[in-house]
Amino acid sequence: MTDTEPAAPVRETAESIATMEIRGAATIASAAAEALAEQAEAAAEEAESDPAAFRASMRGAGRTLRETRPTAVSLPNALRYVLQRMEGDTVDELRRSVVGAADAFVRQLDRAQDDLGQVGANRLADGDTVMTHCHSTDALACIEAAVDQGKSISAVVKETRPRQQGHITAEQLRDAGVPVTLIVDSAARRYLDEVDHVLVGADSIAADGGVINKIGTSGLAVNARERGVPIMTAAQTIKLHPETLTGHTVEIEMRDEEEVIGSEAREEIGEIEVENPAFDVTPPRYMDAIVTEQGQFPPESIVTLMRELFGEGAAEPWAEP
Amino acid sequence: MTDTEPAAPVRETAESIATMEIRGAATIASAAAEALAEQAEAAAEEAESDPAAFRASMRGAGRTLRETRPTAVSLPNALRYVLQRMEGDTVDELRRSVVGAADAFVRQLDRAQDDLGQVGANRLADGDTVMTHCHSTDALACIEAAVDQGKSISAVVKETRPRQQGHITAEQLRDAGVPVTLIVDSAARRYLDEVDHVLVGADSIAADGGVINKIGTSGLAVNARERGVPIMTAAQTIKLHPETLTGHTVEIEMRDEEEVIGSEAREEIGEIEVENPAFDVTPPRYMDAIVTEQGQFPPESIVTLMRELFGEGAAEPWAEP
Amino acid sequence: MTDTEPAAPVRETAESIATMEIRGAATIASAAAEALAEQAEAAAEEAESDPAAFRASMRGAGRTLRETRPTAVSLPNALRYVLQRMEGDTVDELRRSVVGAADAFVRQLDRAQDDLGQVGANRLADGDTVMTHCHSTDALACIEAAVDQGKSISAVVKETRPRQQGHITAEQLRDAGVPVTLIVDSAARRYLDEVDHVLVGADSIAADGGVINKIGTSGLAVNARERGVPIMTAAQTIKLHPETLTGHTVEIEMRDEEEVIGSEAREEIGEIEVENPAFDVTPPRYMDAIVTEQGQFPPESIVTLMRELFGEGAAEPWAEP
Amino acid sequence: MTDTEPAAPVRETAESIATMEIRGAATIASAAAEALAEQAEAAAEEAESDPAAFRASMRGAGRTLRETRPTAVSLPNALRYVLQRMEGDTVDELRRSVVGAADAFVRQLDRAQDDLGQVGANRLADGDTVMTHCHSTDALACIEAAVDQGKSISAVVKETRPRQQGHITAEQLRDAGVPVTLIVDSAARRYLDEVDHVLVGADSIAADGGVINKIGTSGLAVNARERGVPIMTAAQTIKLHPETLTGHTVEIEMRDEEEVIGSEAREEIGEIEVENPAFDVTPPRYMDAIVTEQGQFPPESIVTLMRELFGEGAAEPWAEP
Amino acid sequence: MTDTEPAAPVRETAESIATMEIRGAATIASAAAEALAEQAEAAAEEAESDPAAFRASMRGAGRTLRETRPTAVSLPNALRYVLQRMEGDTVDELRRSVVGAADAFVRQLDRAQDDLGQVGANRLADGDTVMTHCHSTDALACIEAAVDQGKSISAVVKETRPRQQGHITAEQLRDAGVPVTLIVDSAARRYLDEVDHVLVGADSIAADGGVINKIGTSGLAVNARERGVPIMTAAQTIKLHPETLTGHTVEIEMRDEEEVIGSEAREEIGEIEVENPAFDVTPPRYMDAIVTEQGQFPPESIVTLMRELFGEGAAEPWAEP
Amino acid sequence: MTDTEPAAPVRETAESIATMEIRGAATIASAAAEALAEQAEAAAEEAESDPAAFRASMRGAGRTLRETRPTAVSLPNALRYVLQRMEGDTVDELRRSVVGAADAFVRQLDRAQDDLGQVGANRLADGDTVMTHCHSTDALACIEAAVDQGKSISAVVKETRPRQQGHITAEQLRDAGVPVTLIVDSAARRYLDEVDHVLVGADSIAADGGVINKIGTSGLAVNARERGVPIMTAAQTIKLHPETLTGHTVEIEMRDEEEVIGSEAREEIGEIEVENPAFDVTPPRYMDAIVTEQGQFPPESIVTLMRELFGEGAAEPWAEP
Repeated sequence: MTDTEPAAPVRETAESIATMEIRGAATIASAAAEALAEQAEAAAEEAESDPAAFRASMRGAGRTLRETRPTAVSLPNALRYVLQRMEGDTVDELRRSVVGAADAFVRQLDRAQDDLGQVGANRLADGDTVMTHCHSTDALACIEAAVDQGKSISAVVKETRPRQQGHITAEQLRDAGVPVTLIVDSAARRYLDEVDHVLVGADSIAADGGVINKIGTSGLAVNARERGVPIMTAAQTIKLHPETLTGHTVEIEMRDEEEVIGSEAREEIGEIEVENPAFDVTPPRYMDAIVTEQGQFPPESIVTLMRELFGEGAAEPWAEP
Repeated sequence: MTDTEPAAPVRETAESIATMEIRGAATIASAAAEALAEQAEAAAEEAESDPAAFRASMRGAGRTLRETRPTAVSLPNALRYVLQRMEGDTVDELRRSVVGAADAFVRQLDRAQDDLGQVGANRLADGDTVMTHCHSTDALACIEAAVDQGKSISAVVKETRPRQQGHITAEQLRDAGVPVTLIVDSAARRYLDEVDHVLVGADSIAADGGVINKIGTSGLAVNARERGVPIMTAAQTIKLHPETLTGHTVEIEMRDEEEVIGSEAREEIGEIEVENPAFDVTPPRYMDAIVTEQGQFPPESIVTLMRELFGEGAAEPWAEP
Repeated sequence: MTDTEPAAPVRETAESIATMEIRGAATIASAAAEALAEQAEAAAEEAESDPAAFRASMRGAGRTLRETRPTAVSLPNALRYVLQRMEGDTVDELRRSVVGAADAFVRQLDRAQDDLGQVGANRLADGDTVMTHCHSTDALACIEAAVDQGKSISAVVKETRPRQQGHITAEQLRDAGVPVTLIVDSAARRYLDEVDHVLVGADSIAADGGVINKIGTSGLAVNARERGVPIMTAAQTIKLHPETLTGHTVEIEMRDEEEVIGSEAREEIGEIEVENPAFDVTPPRYMDAIVTEQGQFPPESIVTLMRELFGEGAAEPWAEP
Repeated sequence: MTDTEPAAPVRETAESIATMEIRGAATIASAAAEALAEQAEAAAEEAESDPAAFRASMRGAGRTLRETRPTAVSLPNALRYVLQRMEGDTVDELRRSVVGAADAFVRQLDRAQDDLGQVGANRLADGDTVMTHCHSTDALACIEAAVDQGKSISAVVKETRPRQQGHITAEQLRDAGVPVTLIVDSAARRYLDEVDHVLVGADSIAADGGVINKIGTSGLAVNARERGVPIMTAAQTIKLHPETLTGHTVEIEMRDEEEVIGSEAREEIGEIEVENPAFDVTPPRYMDAIVTEQGQFPPESIVTLMRELFGEGAAEPWAEP
Repeated sequence: MTDTEPAAPVRETAESIATMEIRGAATIASAAAEALAEQAEAAAEEAESDPAAFRASMRGAGRTLRETRPTAVSLPNALRYVLQRMEGDTVDELRRSVVGAADAFVRQLDRAQDDLGQVGANRLADGDTVMTHCHSTDALACIEAAVDQGKSISAVVKETRPRQQGHITAEQLRDAGVPVTLIVDSAARRYLDEVDHVLVGADSIAADGGVINKIGTSGLAVNARERGVPIMTAAQTIKLHPETLTGHTVEIEMRDEEEVIGSEAREEIGEIEVENPAFDVTPPRYMDAIVTEQGQFPPESIVTLMRELFGEGAAEPWAEP
Repeated sequence: MTDTEPAAPVRETAESIATMEIRGAATIASAAAEALAEQAEAAAEEAESDPAAFRASMRGAGRTLRETRPTAVSLPNALRYVLQRMEGDTVDELRRSVVGAADAFVRQLDRAQDDLGQVGANRLADGDTVMTHCHSTDALACIEAAVDQGKSISAVVKETRPRQQGHITAEQLRDAGVPVTLIVDSAARRYLDEVDHVLVGADSIAADGGVINKIGTSGLAVNARERGVPIMTAAQTIKLHPETLTGHTVEIEMRDEEEVIGSEAREEIGEIEVENPAFDVTPPRYMDAIVTEQGQFPPESIVTLMRELFGEGAAEPWAEP
């Protein structure tokens, strides 16, 4: 086994991630960590007593996995978490450190949404009304945990154009026994006077505390502050965007105009351009707290958590030395 | 002719307003003023040399018209404008003052949108990009006048859920040769960095400077201020809400949920309430200027214009003394 | 009768104002206007056909009254209102203009609190909770009128140290059937999340829109804005401070330290200075509306009302030409 | 005399304004008003008993004067003030109204700076420190009047690049006995903690309350608000820009780069562009008061004063009917 | 010795804490840490060579102490600090780690107020005036240290209704030679223009940077920001509330109404509710710095210090595994 | 060798720093670290097997270096970085730890500006315009790195009175192929509408997140926020001011008045004081990010980085125990 040819499990996992057979931030991260653990077992056998060979083997596996989906945030986080904790003087120590880190990562990931839900739920009081934007299972976990804690919670749900994921949120909350009022996005400011919290998820979170989330989040956050309503983001730590540690900005996907005008309107509307950005960035000064499975954090301090979990941004533990 | 039985033209106009045969703020106002002029001619004949009888006759006509559509703003404004200018010691003087005021009112109304368009256009510079919300012919008049002035103007048009009147705006601007980018409402804050002005219309304007307009205006205004983009309201003076002079608030219409969820979704979504307020109120501190056919005004000074045009709020010149 | 020796009624009224037998802003203003009317009758008799003599006589009366209480705001307002409306070419015309203006002023004053109460009440909605500071009969008139309109209103009453006039407010509201929660002043921000309006009175109002009111008002207003709660001032137009038109600031009275520390604590606390300013100034940008008997006004436009009612600030219609 | 050929005094005044022999806002305005008065005398003789001819003659004179300096603000204000007050049924009445208005205008202008200085001085308290920007005789009049009132005033004077007119201000204040601290413009925020007022002049003032003044004023105003320091503009009413009533914006002059880099640096700095805008616009929400000879006004209400003094913006009383 | 029956010192300390014989945040924390050290000695003897038994014994002691006062913040902090630092493979190593941690904790606590006072004093400059709210020995330590550093400091002391602990502050500052001006709470905004710093203590501090302190702190902080005055909290690290790491909010005690209305007014005031919340929460965006014995921190970064000192919030080192 | 007499290299370096032969933040820091490494080699020889002697020797060297320039920030940072990492039980271990830490420090320092430039460049997008203040090689490194990344960047350069270091910035950017527009400082707010970023350097950075930089930075930052333009500070970590960890404020140098008025104006301007503060402090709430060679940080979290790199503020690792 050389630096560039990882063991079968890694190759298979990489393949499955690349073909999007494995998808979803948590599933990808979990699979990547597990593949590294398997690689560690294989590499330990292969490398025998050569720690350098073991390290090279692990780095190669990291690179293979890293290249499958360059824009996924959870994938490099999984690799960083595990490979940064690789340490020891012997192959066995190295192996154990990798396997242990991968196990810890997966275990934590498994219960991350539940833990995060508890933290978010603790911020809610009995009788509170919560406004939501888009659909986020992390955000829903907070409300559902609050209901499980015996609190009575109501929701004002923004429909969230263009794809109206608010309808999914509304239905899941309804099914969880939460009274729901559905509104158009433009009605948000009016209903802010009637809610106690705004609760959103995140696509990713930047080192400067910016929250990248479904388009409309930043405008909502500005209004929440103006109306004096606290707003929080629920996001597992795998959403922390490590490349932003080195100043990289998160590129905002422009999605198909059909989501905005439907499939048949293009001809009809003629010379009108349609733009459909998927996300926007909410500056940290408009966000009161980021709720993770590790607890809650002011957005301005999330960079410390990022470095603690995933290392400094410039470090790429899979890179050839 | 007595205080309570107006002449035929008034009765017919009242009937047509009540049945909504006559509709639209400007059309109603115009018809009401003209009816008063005709009433003045009739009353002058009837009253002969009794000024008190003439006045009573005019008040009666005012009441008849006033009662047709209690929530229209332009109707009482027309009545107030004309009847408040009724003055003189003789029937002839009274008649002439009424006819003159009605003529002046109608003449001004006829060119109000053009005049307003010029004022609004003067605020725009060559090369500016303007963001719009909903569909307002007053707002469009400003952009079109700017184009007529030879300025190159682009537009970012919010679709304006739930009824998507932004599509009408987009098409009219496209037809006027204005390059248009259509976006969902939630994308507004992102595009504010690329626009030079936000331009909205008004359903009505309150004495405290609040602008009642299509739901979403206030949230947009808060974001425009946060992004440092000036925002103006284009509204003819018949939109000034005289009852707000005495502190009355403008009741916000709640519209049908079908506008939000479509006609077939009710059963499907089950126990989810849908609320669909038509308008919201933008406080004066988030609006830079109100553009009328009388010129531009900071919203905090619009009360002075209201009192100048339509008298003090408590005065109802059609009321029995 | 000369320029400097007014008729008996003026002399008597002046004496009663000076000795504080006549007190209270409205009572003083009313008495002054009535004295001017009586003076007009006397002066007309005296002056016979000399309009200049009549004018001199009225000016003298104005000066006599003006000098009784240099710091009262309502007194010069009454004099300005009446004397500014003195016009005519003959003594009889002059007399009639003065008597008419005085009558109009007194009539308006008589119903000012009721009218103002209606305006303020119109701003309140059924079910609203109102926070009050200090004790103001104008502010109370708004809540009581709302109750009379059939609205259900609750109140959060700040005790208003040092004199705890909040207790008087609490008791009067209780007696009017309004459920009251009494709090210390420091608890205001916490309770702002539970109220729909803040409602205060005014000691006087400045031409730049500043509201001079009981100490603590400005801090409350800043917090009301921060919490997104509208705040209004209820004040009759006799509170509009005409000298501020020419830039004069309103001097803030420093009251006795006993109000703060009680009568026996001076010796006990030793070398600790106690300061007890009676009022503070709330800038117009933190006040949503000023409610008067003439309707509601944004504070930035109140200067126009001041000039309309009481003339330009520099004009002193009682001054020798 | 026809509509297009005014009398000698108007022709001479127009010539002198055009050649900048007559310069300075107040001097121009005064000369224009006086020329109209002289024209009225001449026209009355010429027109004999034809009011229409008189009116046409006056309009012609207005046009002749108007065309001399299209960008001066005080010139059209003088013309508007006088011509708008032209009224009467006979030539003699018309003549008298014009001459009277011109006299009133000139008389008021003569004492405007003194009156304004009193108003501004009244806003200052004994012991205050005032920060200034650029050089404005209106602003200086306020400080000097305060000193004359016996108040002790200190000043922090910004040098005001590029032309460093702050040095003139510093010297005049020094000569008036005011202790002066001179600082660079960038030091303003630091010194705001030590001053009680910021005081600036104006190049012109817009109907929407914007203050056009020396570049740097708006940035200073934003910082004054952030530091909690009140800021006022001292400006005579001839600075009120009537064209802004109809939405026109004030074009900002770009001045020579030599003012910024000196006369010899062009070659040296090579491919570096230098921009040197003369003025900027301070939005009304950052200005506490505008001090004029008519009293003080919140900037949001200045539009009312503009209309009162100079008529509605669209009206051009010199235009052919 | 079993998991559930701690040694005598722990039992005695627990008893004394429960009966409030031991009281005060620092005293409780110190006693708890010392009890753990004594328990470690006892447990080491008991456990002999069974590290698991030793650990169980320590956990049991932790639980016993924890249960005495569920709402005290300093108690769990002491337990967390010590037990989290328990480490080693042998009983002796474990014992030494516990005793060492307890010693370090107590030593640090002993000098915490002095150290904190130095940090706070360093933020003050010679000649500064400081505004205080309520009575906090940590805040006083800062001022007294500044005086000891030779700085001349003055104070504006808010009386702090309802219990007027400001009087205690005023007296202690007076005795420290600090010139004191006592004011009612409502006068704060007026005096903010005359002070250089606002300095408050804390009841506890939350992971999201919120400062829980005497009612009135948050309203004062909002006004301090509005007036441009920096505000800091002085609080030892034992005030950092570890449960807030997991999103728990701090319940605000409602105290007796007698504190507000005195003991005899209940009957008198009749149907008036009185509410008396003890504390409020100041959001981190209105607080400039938190001064601790470990140095100063922006409130947004305090969560990092909490985790460093006391571990992650979810961890309860006394819990059975 | 005793505690007080360091080896020749330290003595020489100290001398060169004291005489300013060695100058510049990075050069000083580098020299100090290298001197410590040399001292470690010498001390190891001297101390033989006495770790205490070695430690004493290193502390003495630290003190000698520390005393050379009490106000330099980078010097104590270098000493802290190295001495805090001194650890081991034997002289050899100690020696190796010191030499290793010094090497690491110097290596990191060597590439700090490049690394920082990359981070800052990553925050810029192709086509962006950047506004600069003063001259900072760290800030320039960001723009130059962006150009190297192939991005097209333009600049608006403030001249930065009084010393006009903006000219140096303008020339360097011009030479790097960046189109430059030079403006006076007062024009900043006007040009903020045309720029995408504001980018400044730092003289030092405080633990509370305050950025100490060339006078004018804070006023610019306030305006950048008001205009919605992000602002970042580029500063290597040797600029982090460790004494601010314990609350010390950074004293602002007052520079010669000649910089403001030139060398010949003193006599001319007479009784006018000139003040010329070199720096001001920008509060963290007006700064979006601090860009260092370690990545980007919200200013509120920089305290964590300071403690990680340089230890707690109170610790002075060169102090005698």
